Amino acid sequence: MMTLSLIGIGCGDPGQLTRAAIDAINAADLVLIPRKGSAKSDLADLRRTICADVLTNAKTRIAEFDLPVREAGEADYRKGVDDWHDAVAATWSQTIADHLGGEGKVALLIWGDPSLYDSSLRIARRLNPLPDIEVVPGITSIQALCAAHALPLNDIGEPFLVTTGRRLREGGWPVGVDTVVVMLDGGTAFQSLDPEGLHIWWGAYLGMADQIIMSGALAEVGARIVASRQAARERHGWIMDSYILKRRP
Amino acid sequence: MMTLSLIGIGCGDPGQLTRAAIDAINAADLVLIPRKGSAKSDLADLRRTICADVLTNAKTRIAEFDLPVREAGEADYRKGVDDWHDAVAATWSQTIADHLGGEGKVALLIWGDPSLYDSSLRIARRLNPLPDIEVVPGITSIQALCAAHALPLNDIGEPFLVTTGRRLREGGWPVGVDTVVVMLDGGTAFQSLDPEGLHIWWGAYLGMADQIIMSGALAEVGARIVASRQAARERHGWIMDSYILKRRP
Ligand SMILES: C[S@@+](CC[C@H](N)C(=O)[O-])C[C@H]1O[C@@H](n2cnc3c(N)ncnc32)[C@H](O)[C@@H]1O
Ligand SMILES: C[S@@+](CC[C@H](N)C(=O)[O-])C[C@H]1O[C@@H](n2cnc3c(N)ncnc32)[C@H](O)[C@@H]1O
Repeated sequence: MMTLSLIGIGCGDPGQLTRAAIDAINAADLVLIPRKGSAKSDLADLRRTICADVLTNAKTRIAEFDLPVREAGEADYRKGVDDWHDAVAATWSQTIADHLGGEGKVALLIWGDPSLYDSSLRIARRLNPLPDIEVVPGITSIQALCAAHALPLNDIGEPFLVTTGRRLREGGWPVGVDTVVVMLDGGTAFQSLDPEGLHIWWGAYLGMADQIIMSGALAEVGARIVASRQAARERHGWIMDSYILKRRP
Repeated sequence: MMTLSLIGIGCGDPGQLTRAAIDAINAADLVLIPRKGSAKSDLADLRRTICADVLTNAKTRIAEFDLPVREAGEADYRKGVDDWHDAVAATWSQTIADHLGGEGKVALLIWGDPSLYDSSLRIARRLNPLPDIEVVPGITSIQALCAAHALPLNDIGEPFLVTTGRRLREGGWPVGVDTVVVMLDGGTAFQSLDPEGLHIWWGAYLGMADQIIMSGALAEVGARIVASRQAARERHGWIMDSYILKRRP
């Protein structure tokens, strides 16, 4: 039998690791660490640091592997994602077969929580043979953002929507909610909104040494966030940021 | 100076504690533990167990206190909540003054994550004098629910809404989303929906010894969830449950 543990490790701060995550890492026979493009090598480094830091089981092995590159040419977005998931699943299978054979416990360290805007669960379901799949929850970037701002996410008894930068840009302010969390924004989609009555709580590199947070009335801080984001992105070569927008009557 | 740490402890499984939470508990001079009504005394017990389990700082003291009772008679819901938050803030202040005086580090252990459907941050802002407020994120019931079902919360690139049982019952299926997370449902609000095309992933006592999960087409499993929930609630005297609904074309 093969078990695959998808272990949420939080989103940058090793203090966000849970006891269950540490136990699951130590219960693994093999930990798989994807090497990403050099721009994001900080992230592969964090995974290595975490393993070095928490591994006490001398029998656990670590295997690094290269992620297949996603076809940029595919016109059909769904098909592009689908093909890429198949390719990643094949790479996982091969790496597991090379290092472990057909039996044992494999762990993957997942950024944030495995259930939030992450494809590992979908890829895991394509493995052949299909392993038992186990999920260990981890602190998400949404929680790191709220904690950094000491912000209650929802208003009392009220709903909130979690969406992507692309959706916000294409669809405008969503119907029926006054709180919107935006992730996966390659740009600054909040600029597409009328800022009147909107407040923003923004954060980049949350939980990391270079964490930046800014908040205020969107009309006042929006342009400053755009400038900070641009400068930080140039300095690091990459950026990960998220924000919460609230509409106040 | 006074610092108040709101420390997310996860929602029932002590393995969900993060390293930062353990450090924050040990950094406190005083940990406040509310005694709740006897029905939910399991929850105060979990807080005591966690403290006993992770406290290594001999100087940290623990103070239990009784939460004020919420006025049932107040017709105005907002005003009822407002008055209750004031009363809780007064109790915190008094307990802190009794045990610590005007200076030090106070910790409160918060169920799940302090930013998600929790009033502690709002109450903390009413303390007089106002302390520095620090938030340590914790695993939420949403993440425990997804992990238990090995379920990706969002569809690829798609938004999701988090709402309450009351909202779902009053407003029906929300506009513009195919995934809805429902919390704070005193009953089974999903019964108010046309089950056609809906799937449900339900969980009660997530992360605890008595965890129950069920999932499937709402038309098929809805009635069974209602029955399980009723039976479990009678057995325990209380229930905490959450669910995710997805609309599949
Ligand atoms: C592919 S999603 C992964 C989300 C992750 N599974 C989680 O639980 O947060 C990547 C997005 O998460 C957000 N994100 C992840 N880590 C972040 C961080 N440290 N600071 C700010 N945003 C972050 C950004 O919005 C980014 O575009
Ligand atoms: C007042 S809210 C607190 C939420 C908490 N701060 C969190 O992060 O999950 C209480 C609601 O959370 C959900 N909940 C909390 N703990 C749970 C558990 N162990 N199992 C299922 N649902 C839970 C239920 O929907 C419950 O009505």
